[in-house]
Amino acid sequence: MRVLGIDPGLRNLGWGVIDANGSRLSHVANGILHPKGEALPERLLSLHDQLVDIVSLYAPQAAAVEQTFVNKDGAGTLKLGQARGIALLVPARAGLTVGEYAPNAVKKTIVGVGHADKAQIAHMVRLQLPGVRIAGADAADALAIALCHAYHVQGVGRLAAAIGRAGA
Amino acid sequence: MRVLGIDPGLRNLGWGVIDANGSRLSHVANGILHPKGEALPERLLSLHDQLVDIVSLYAPQAAAVEQTFVNKDGAGTLKLGQARGIALLVPARAGLTVGEYAPNAVKKTIVGVGHADKAQIAHMVRLQLPGVRIAGADAADALAIALCHAYHVQGVGRLAAAIGRAGA
Repeated sequence: MRVLGIDPGLRNLGWGVIDANGSRLSHVANGILHPKGEALPERLLSLHDQLVDIVSLYAPQAAAVEQTFVNKDGAGTLKLGQARGIALLVPARAGLTVGEYAPNAVKKTIVGVGHADKAQIAHMVRLQLPGVRIAGADAADALAIALCHAYHVQGVGRLAAAIGRAGA
Repeated sequence: MRVLGIDPGLRNLGWGVIDANGSRLSHVANGILHPKGEALPERLLSLHDQLVDIVSLYAPQAAAVEQTFVNKDGAGTLKLGQARGIALLVPARAGLTVGEYAPNAVKKTIVGVGHADKAQIAHMVRLQLPGVRIAGADAADALAIALCHAYHVQGVGRLAAAIGRAGA
């Protein structure tokens, strides 16, 4: 199963693609999208088109998007929501089921605790996907979301065991 | 110029289409979309597809979307943002420029004051678009946004005069 993970954002949208076949996990690609343009509709369109290209290039069979909001700042939450709308729409239009995971659920699955920092997440992503070169923190988060989805959908025993070992 | 106005929302998305040729304004159509489905990606896809149908059926030359956020509730703002992302994307993908207006700007343009209530907005929309049958409050807001955009883009003298008279 090929999984696309997305960490949505209007300035930086992290994405990561992994292959998960039974207990075998491998990295396919990851990166960070920066929408072009000044006006919001233009930026959302740019994000949409870049994400459509990624779905078309890597042909994932499932997708997962981080579920998060910023409580302190209504304008920031609205911006994030707009980017998240695009992040959910593009895989749905491609006929994929789209999982949603709260940041704490992703951390708990990948690192073993709900309050891990970004360095820990990147470390665990590297352990799970040997040889991966990560484009940045948002791409590491996106790969973590893809891993989390693969784990939840497949319930891979060895991945669970690996997480248990590495988290111990 | 044919203008599509959108009042975005994840439960009810109001839309309205008007024709504005110089000082001549006329109603084309209006309605309220209710996204189908349970899961969020499915609901956003449903909203997207219904909005694509409206753009394709009425072929507007410009669009305008209400710019609003709910400050008190992060989860509500995120939901609104997701719907708003779709509302901005669909006309942008169709090659339209998309205007954005804060609710107060719409009210000030259409009613003459920034704090008008829904009944006043519906009343002024009916005055500007004689014979219109409005599908509901969200559709009235969408028509008001379309009128606001036509007024700002065309700077129609007679419309301004009409607003001045009716607001006096």
